[in-house]
Amino acid sequence: MAMMHLAQFLVHGPTYHSLAMWRHPKTAAAGYDWTRPQLYQHIAQVCERGMFDMVFFADLNYISDTYRGSLDPALRYAAQAPEHDPIPLLSYMAAVTRHIGVASTFSVSQHHPFYAARLWATLDHLTDGRAGWNVVTSINHNQDANFGVDRPPTDVRYDRAHEFIEVCRKLWASWDEDAVVMDRAGAQFANSAKVRRIEHKGEFFRSRGPLNVVRSPQDGPVILQAGTSPKGVDFAARYADAIFAIQPRPQDAKRYFDTIKGRMAELGRPPEHCRILFGMQPIIGSTEAEAREKQEEHNALVPLEGGMAILSAHADYDLSKIDLEAPMADRTEPELQRLKSRFRKPSGESLTLREVAQRHGQSVGLPQFVGTPASIADQMEAFLREAGGDGFMLSPIYCPGAIEEFVDLVVPELQRRGLVRTEYRGRTMRDLLRQDD
Amino acid sequence: MAMMHLAQFLVHGPTYHSLAMWRHPKTAAAGYDWTRPQLYQHIAQVCERGMFDMVFFADLNYISDTYRGSLDPALRYAAQAPEHDPIPLLSYMAAVTRHIGVASTFSVSQHHPFYAARLWATLDHLTDGRAGWNVVTSINHNQDANFGVDRPPTDVRYDRAHEFIEVCRKLWASWDEDAVVMDRAGAQFANSAKVRRIEHKGEFFRSRGPLNVVRSPQDGPVILQAGTSPKGVDFAARYADAIFAIQPRPQDAKRYFDTIKGRMAELGRPPEHCRILFGMQPIIGSTEAEAREKQEEHNALVPLEGGMAILSAHADYDLSKIDLEAPMADRTEPELQRLKSRFRKPSGESLTLREVAQRHGQSVGLPQFVGTPASIADQMEAFLREAGGDGFMLSPIYCPGAIEEFVDLVVPELQRRGLVRTEYRGRTMRDLLRQDD
Repeated sequence: MAMMHLAQFLVHGPTYHSLAMWRHPKTAAAGYDWTRPQLYQHIAQVCERGMFDMVFFADLNYISDTYRGSLDPALRYAAQAPEHDPIPLLSYMAAVTRHIGVASTFSVSQHHPFYAARLWATLDHLTDGRAGWNVVTSINHNQDANFGVDRPPTDVRYDRAHEFIEVCRKLWASWDEDAVVMDRAGAQFANSAKVRRIEHKGEFFRSRGPLNVVRSPQDGPVILQAGTSPKGVDFAARYADAIFAIQPRPQDAKRYFDTIKGRMAELGRPPEHCRILFGMQPIIGSTEAEAREKQEEHNALVPLEGGMAILSAHADYDLSKIDLEAPMADRTEPELQRLKSRFRKPSGESLTLREVAQRHGQSVGLPQFVGTPASIADQMEAFLREAGGDGFMLSPIYCPGAIEEFVDLVVPELQRRGLVRTEYRGRTMRDLLRQDD
Repeated sequence: MAMMHLAQFLVHGPTYHSLAMWRHPKTAAAGYDWTRPQLYQHIAQVCERGMFDMVFFADLNYISDTYRGSLDPALRYAAQAPEHDPIPLLSYMAAVTRHIGVASTFSVSQHHPFYAARLWATLDHLTDGRAGWNVVTSINHNQDANFGVDRPPTDVRYDRAHEFIEVCRKLWASWDEDAVVMDRAGAQFANSAKVRRIEHKGEFFRSRGPLNVVRSPQDGPVILQAGTSPKGVDFAARYADAIFAIQPRPQDAKRYFDTIKGRMAELGRPPEHCRILFGMQPIIGSTEAEAREKQEEHNALVPLEGGMAILSAHADYDLSKIDLEAPMADRTEPELQRLKSRFRKPSGESLTLREVAQRHGQSVGLPQFVGTPASIADQMEAFLREAGGDGFMLSPIYCPGAIEEFVDLVVPELQRRGLVRTEYRGRTMRDLLRQDD
């Protein structure tokens, strides 16, 4: 089996995928303060000890009022609220690490490509080639209201995102690698023959260029993506160096994996040029029984109303209209189709709204892998064997303890099996992602 | 005499106000690499040792082709090109300091206030109240071309900037200080009664809010500004905690100082609520003769064509059309009026274009204060006595050596005179700026 790629999921806020995280006794006992940069520096160092490819931030630009038309559930249960801007944290984390990639979500919906290209090329320089950008478009009416915009249809959103990335790539290539000559005696800093205008005039954007940032170590950052619609799959297959996917059932994970890698092959991209990382929530015990106890303790701390709030926010659809005991698999509301892979048990049986909301509050649909370190390593191996690859995006049930435990207990087991690297080779995050052994 | 406020001017690029800086032998000997974050961390630590209020980044989103319609002069002479995004550096610098403010320019022209408010509130949290935002609007056709926009008239630019800041202030105030309750047992993270929509519907922006960032230590960052037009003066007097001004002649500095403080008084703001920091380039020797030699050595390293490029960029007007020996004080081109305080000697006599361009390449019009540490302290004291206050923004002739020399040689002299603090008191950058003793 090929090497497993590991990434740590983070949010610059009190909760990640688990709505119980902020109030979990082990989070409280650790003196958790999500507003302090030192917490994230510590996590980056722990994950670098664990030979992860990257730490990765999700991001949102709103507090959801979708559930019951009120801000109260999101604020009361810390359901993706508050979320501070994660970009300034990347620098803090890079400052105390040497190898691990630092990545963040950054929406293209409210920006011009010149700004994004400049920001991400700068981050790629400062991290010496360890920057990663998760390109997203916005799909929530609360975000639209914060920015005072009307939402374009999905197809237009993706067309705009395609052009956005194309403009960024032109700008990143507007300086040749040897454009800076630094001839002090001759008073010549750069050779202007090696710096070009891009003169982009497209459907959505115009930009003349050149970028005022010199060529960066990775020619721009690593590109991350998560797309499930046909246009989203095409976008991911075309541009992404890695994809973060939530697929609770391995058979669905395999279907997704094959779709992406198939589309990449059509585009002439080798499969290792885009890694697919499946979301997973590890719950580790020294015995199976202890692990089950930890799972029950954690899941019982999730308020159902919080799960309803976060599920409604993700669908941008008020689920208070649906009966809690209704089966979800065959719902026909268009807003729910994007989430339908989360509505069935591994057996195929439909979950009720109560069950889906509860799971959403626990892990936003990420499968919980529960057991001893060896058993979790077994489950990870089995999942990837069935899905096809390439690795996992991990999300903790308490913080930072659950991250430390995974690195200290499960990673050594995976290393013994030859499934996780034992030292970093290469220079950039793209180097790490492409490695197979 | 009241305490002097000190700030260090920086650019995330090879040159600051001096076009000679990148090629100066002392810069080269120091192993200068302007792309590495460690350089800026070192500078921040040096300035914190010097009890500065802040380090401050200028910023630009273009490479100028104004002079002779070509990118070559800007690239060849590193005339404000390249300039990487300074915002990611603020985190690096804050990570290794405890007291000094970290500030940057950030243009409002290409953004929506929700994005800016969120970014700057986050930075204010991460720095524990040490973040400063220099609010600028864009005034260069090269930037317009990079962002594919048409430039609005000056008045509209300032009206938009006013509304931009008003929306930010509403968003920064959308969470009460005690909104986060963190009641783990009761499963309540925040009290939604203390988080409000802003429902802003203005001439330029709409935003519903609330911000998804909790109340920050300074209720948003310190606001910096530099405005000379009537609308600019009003903007600065109304919103700014500090102003950076280039006024080579103390009598012009006094006029500017009195204008701002007068407008502040009309608006009911006490004078210490907005500090005026005058740009200055110190050239320090152990004797007067050595200092003069250093000045000559530095100024001789400035290529005149580079000065023409940067002056043309600042005016957004191609100065190759004007004879080099022409006197500049009475030029009538509207593009040149903003810069006219740089066109006369202290005596009042007009400078020629050659002289203005040479000075622009040396220091962008900042006066050079040349001499022994005691003599420079004398000159600083005399300048502020004539101008009225409040302090200086310093710009080095080589890097980082000239910054280290000022802190190690001139600051102790100023401290002996009771003009610079000997220890930090207070918590936030705003605390530092408001201190008088």
